[in-house]
Amino acid sequence: MTSHLLSRFSEGSIHTVWDASLPPILQIQSGDTLTLETLDASYGQMARQVQAGQHPELASELSAVIVGSVYPAGPLTGGQRGHPLTGPVFVEGAQPGDTLAIEILSVEAAAWGWTACQPHGIGLLDAVLADELGQGYVHFWDLRSGTFAHFRPDIRVPLAPFPGVVGLAPAEFGPHLTSPPRQVGGNMDIRQLVAGSTLYLPVEVPGALLSAGDLHGAQGDGEVSGTGIEMEGRLTLRLSVLKDFPVTQPQFRAPPEPTNLWSQGSYAATGHAPDVMSAARTALEGLIRHMQLEYRLTLPQAYVLASACADLRISQIVDAPNYTVSALLPLGIFS
Amino acid sequence: MTSHLLSRFSEGSIHTVWDASLPPILQIQSGDTLTLETLDASYGQMARQVQAGQHPELASELSAVIVGSVYPAGPLTGGQRGHPLTGPVFVEGAQPGDTLAIEILSVEAAAWGWTACQPHGIGLLDAVLADELGQGYVHFWDLRSGTFAHFRPDIRVPLAPFPGVVGLAPAEFGPHLTSPPRQVGGNMDIRQLVAGSTLYLPVEVPGALLSAGDLHGAQGDGEVSGTGIEMEGRLTLRLSVLKDFPVTQPQFRAPPEPTNLWSQGSYAATGHAPDVMSAARTALEGLIRHMQLEYRLTLPQAYVLASACADLRISQIVDAPNYTVSALLPLGIFS
Repeated sequence: MTSHLLSRFSEGSIHTVWDASLPPILQIQSGDTLTLETLDASYGQMARQVQAGQHPELASELSAVIVGSVYPAGPLTGGQRGHPLTGPVFVEGAQPGDTLAIEILSVEAAAWGWTACQPHGIGLLDAVLADELGQGYVHFWDLRSGTFAHFRPDIRVPLAPFPGVVGLAPAEFGPHLTSPPRQVGGNMDIRQLVAGSTLYLPVEVPGALLSAGDLHGAQGDGEVSGTGIEMEGRLTLRLSVLKDFPVTQPQFRAPPEPTNLWSQGSYAATGHAPDVMSAARTALEGLIRHMQLEYRLTLPQAYVLASACADLRISQIVDAPNYTVSALLPLGIFS
Repeated sequence: MTSHLLSRFSEGSIHTVWDASLPPILQIQSGDTLTLETLDASYGQMARQVQAGQHPELASELSAVIVGSVYPAGPLTGGQRGHPLTGPVFVEGAQPGDTLAIEILSVEAAAWGWTACQPHGIGLLDAVLADELGQGYVHFWDLRSGTFAHFRPDIRVPLAPFPGVVGLAPAEFGPHLTSPPRQVGGNMDIRQLVAGSTLYLPVEVPGALLSAGDLHGAQGDGEVSGTGIEMEGRLTLRLSVLKDFPVTQPQFRAPPEPTNLWSQGSYAATGHAPDVMSAARTALEGLIRHMQLEYRLTLPQAYVLASACADLRISQIVDAPNYTVSALLPLGIFS
């Protein structure tokens, strides 16, 4: 077994589309471990905004940390087409039909992160609430404690970092957008993929061609505003080729909840509708309205906080014609 | 404050539709507590099947317990149109626009329960897997320990009983089916509504007209085969009229997970599709196939067990065009 490090500044180590024709930046053996340095989903743009003085509300100390993370424009060559991903990594012996087992050994958070919402963006309520979202909102999180990130002095979200994107190259010809996840994984945003979990992905091309990125410091099930706690970071994986464990869609084994986020129970709003999407929208809006009133948050603040920690659960998907989604806010965030 | 008991055998105490014109069987004051005896969703039909010898696979001891629970046909008058619900209860002072706070003080499980699947029924995969489901399957659970129910000697589900149906009469004229939940609650099948939780429902008619029933000994988020651990039972509530806490859809406050079901982590399959329903189907089928292989379960067994304990989580609902559902099996059920 060998350990490898793939720096985010290695020549050609960042790509912004899935494409089986991209040349691998590293070749490893099954069973090797691999550390990937990853960029945040904004490709450094958020840090450059702070550097340019666009977020004067930031405390000077955190602002200095963020500005200190600005990197040269070099990695931007190739254009911003999607998430900046580190890879691809060629795993020897991996063949179409195999499964790649990806043990997530550690996920190291950066010193800061951000969560945002905007009108008419990708978030679940961006269209419905467009007028009230105004110009949108960005919350910057100080992640230096390594355990908690404060939203407000009396509200803190425990960190449970995971990679938003882990995937393999699809066999289908051509470049593919990074936004939608697919049968070979990708931008799945599954918050259970913390250190200690194992992800199983179906291999479609020789060498599997793994890439990863878009680390999140924390996120609720749903990623409702479209962003978790977005951050740069370091991801350490062990990759193993499995010949006798076929999967057709991503599967994973996850450890128990890594924090005490849910130990104080939850407050929830529900939605009941003939389609799950509508039920989810109603549930989330109910929860956000509750958060505004109960905790004196603005609408954009409540939305962003929900994206970082609230869960969308499918309570029932069988009682036609109305299905039920519950949006659960963990009360463990309040002190 | 007064305590009331509503027996399932009280004249007129069981109804099978929501209808604001049904006469209340009991009138109480805001702040009173109330114990409702409730029937199972089959209206006693499962017990009568066992009595008729239709489930010879049952251990004789459990069979005797089930047969002992058979009640006279009396409560069936009125016909089986939907869930048999105990109520309605008129709460003095409740007016349209108010909120009824329903504290769930205790949920007492019966001595036995059942979970079923069938081809072309209401379950999430009943159509997709119809051929493999054959004649369907019923699992009978021995609930007498009060803490766990065994599915197999090496598989047990911890009990976390809750009411599948809690609701108020809708203002809209006429009888309404009990199957779909709606803005005044009803068949929401929200597994978080265990003892210690509080449900908030919007009042639409004078007196609120609360009814409840369809207790479940346990259930996963989703209730994927269409049934949880279905059972008779006793539900104790405290009902309070709130004049200054308006809700437009059901909301609730829930305690932490009441069992250690998730303390061993989870195994999950995922689905990624342009609609959440399809993503949920793919995720669940992946999980059930895994359970068949890994734990030597038949397809109907895996489906029924998943309905009793596996969770459907919306991992992300923002990465268009594909949304992600994860079906999580709690590993705490295996010994």
